[in-house]
Amino acid sequence: ITSSSSPMDPPPKFIDFPHLSISTKNLMVDLVSKTENTLSPNLLPSSLPPEVQYFQNSSATSQGCLHIRSGTNNSQVDCVLGNWIHCELPNGGALDITTLTAYLNSNTDAPRFLIEFIQNSPKSLILILDLPPRKDVVMNPEYLKTFYEETQLDESRKKLLELSEIRSYISASLYLRALSSPTAISVTIDCGESGGAARLEEIIRDHVGPIAKDMLEVWLNQCVCTERGVDESEKVELMKRDVLIKKKTVEVDLASSLPRLFGQDVANLVIEAISKAFDIL
Amino acid sequence: ITSSSSPMDPPPKFIDFPHLSISTKNLMVDLVSKTENTLSPNLLPSSLPPEVQYFQNSSATSQGCLHIRSGTNNSQVDCVLGNWIHCELPNGGALDITTLTAYLNSNTDAPRFLIEFIQNSPKSLILILDLPPRKDVVMNPEYLKTFYEETQLDESRKKLLELSEIRSYISASLYLRALSSPTAISVTIDCGESGGAARLEEIIRDHVGPIAKDMLEVWLNQCVCTERGVDESEKVELMKRDVLIKKKTVEVDLASSLPRLFGQDVANLVIEAISKAFDIL
Repeated sequence: ITSSSSPMDPPPKFIDFPHLSISTKNLMVDLVSKTENTLSPNLLPSSLPPEVQYFQNSSATSQGCLHIRSGTNNSQVDCVLGNWIHCELPNGGALDITTLTAYLNSNTDAPRFLIEFIQNSPKSLILILDLPPRKDVVMNPEYLKTFYEETQLDESRKKLLELSEIRSYISASLYLRALSSPTAISVTIDCGESGGAARLEEIIRDHVGPIAKDMLEVWLNQCVCTERGVDESEKVELMKRDVLIKKKTVEVDLASSLPRLFGQDVANLVIEAISKAFDIL
Repeated sequence: ITSSSSPMDPPPKFIDFPHLSISTKNLMVDLVSKTENTLSPNLLPSSLPPEVQYFQNSSATSQGCLHIRSGTNNSQVDCVLGNWIHCELPNGGALDITTLTAYLNSNTDAPRFLIEFIQNSPKSLILILDLPPRKDVVMNPEYLKTFYEETQLDESRKKLLELSEIRSYISASLYLRALSSPTAISVTIDCGESGGAARLEEIIRDHVGPIAKDMLEVWLNQCVCTERGVDESEKVELMKRDVLIKKKTVEVDLASSLPRLFGQDVANLVIEAISKAFDIL
């Protein structure tokens, strides 16, 4: 899972995923390619400066890549955002966080897409896979029906939880919990007791992979590529909600951890690049 | 857990909980008494007709009690609603559902209170214990902070889940999932493998009891008895949300199951009494 590198090597690219196991890497490459290929007429080229495309701390024990494609003005895509960080831990292990998330703009109220792997052992990881809603589903039962009941998303969650290695995972942040859909897949996959890293590879390839690809398919077909007929007052509400979610996500997810892992200067650059793409500066 | 009864006995009262085990019964009596004693200046006497205070199906294999106290006009209490049903199952067992829930009115936006036991074996049960929010917490991070972070409610959830007999439980209804707070306790307690009914009694008495009483304390002190200064436009929003939640709760929770268990006529009477108290007729 670790890669050796010399100062002369060119820095890794986002899509290289140099620290992931084969199954997770293959899956992430598939998801990113499928997303970008399908949405390519709606995506602008990346305009990130090189120093945030790849970044590291002063001792190079923490490394990261950021990848952002904003949507064109006439599309429903706000931006596709991918990133990974790899941090060597004092105990000899490493922490790897790998994320692909896609935001839509206020031309539609359809859900976002999110997949995240959080891994600090070759034998176990945390997986978040969800279409986070962009409306209060309590006040909008039709929305719940359209995007979560009729899409049968809960069947995938249940199927994963049938595996003995998989348990529900509940995030420490109450705000991140609140952002999840009612069918969110939020699980730990722990093969420490049986099968180890090889079994984890198998679970990612044979179980997580098909489910993640199905969910992306639902998102591409029924969320991005469907007209929802959002009126002007709804657009204002959606924008308010999206901006607040982006601000809180940066605050909860990044502003608390990046400075610790990369130092304040590098963290500032990364957070600024994301905030700019999010249009929340 | 079962009680023998003859046709000459007076029908059981809500507070009798004649089919519950000692620990669960003691806890429910404590919670109901504490709630009604604390709120008594704000509660009107029950005005339910006798045929819904106690009801049964034609063969008396299903029995139920309903108990509703509405709040006075100048209070923040909308209504306190308790009910239990006891249904003999074809396999010889029984299903017991026992609920205490308290709704606030639009003078405050503070959360509701909810405890529910769903039990179909002496060795295991499902427990729901929550202060369900009355606002979209995604759009109201301050609300999340006040009622869920600063009250430390998540600590109780974590403490319960440390017991090996306790696992997260996820409701089959996506709408009921969406109604939960981010700190909702929604768990199965299963002592089938170790300790059986005696261990379940112990867990209810020593672990669930203190946590449920603490949560009720938080609700009574920080939700019912605190002024929140809700303005007129917020009141309109709260009323809209509360009415929708009540309608959906009746639809998801009662309208689908009561007719099957009690026949359509009895079910109609019970649903009508609840809808009247909910002011959603």
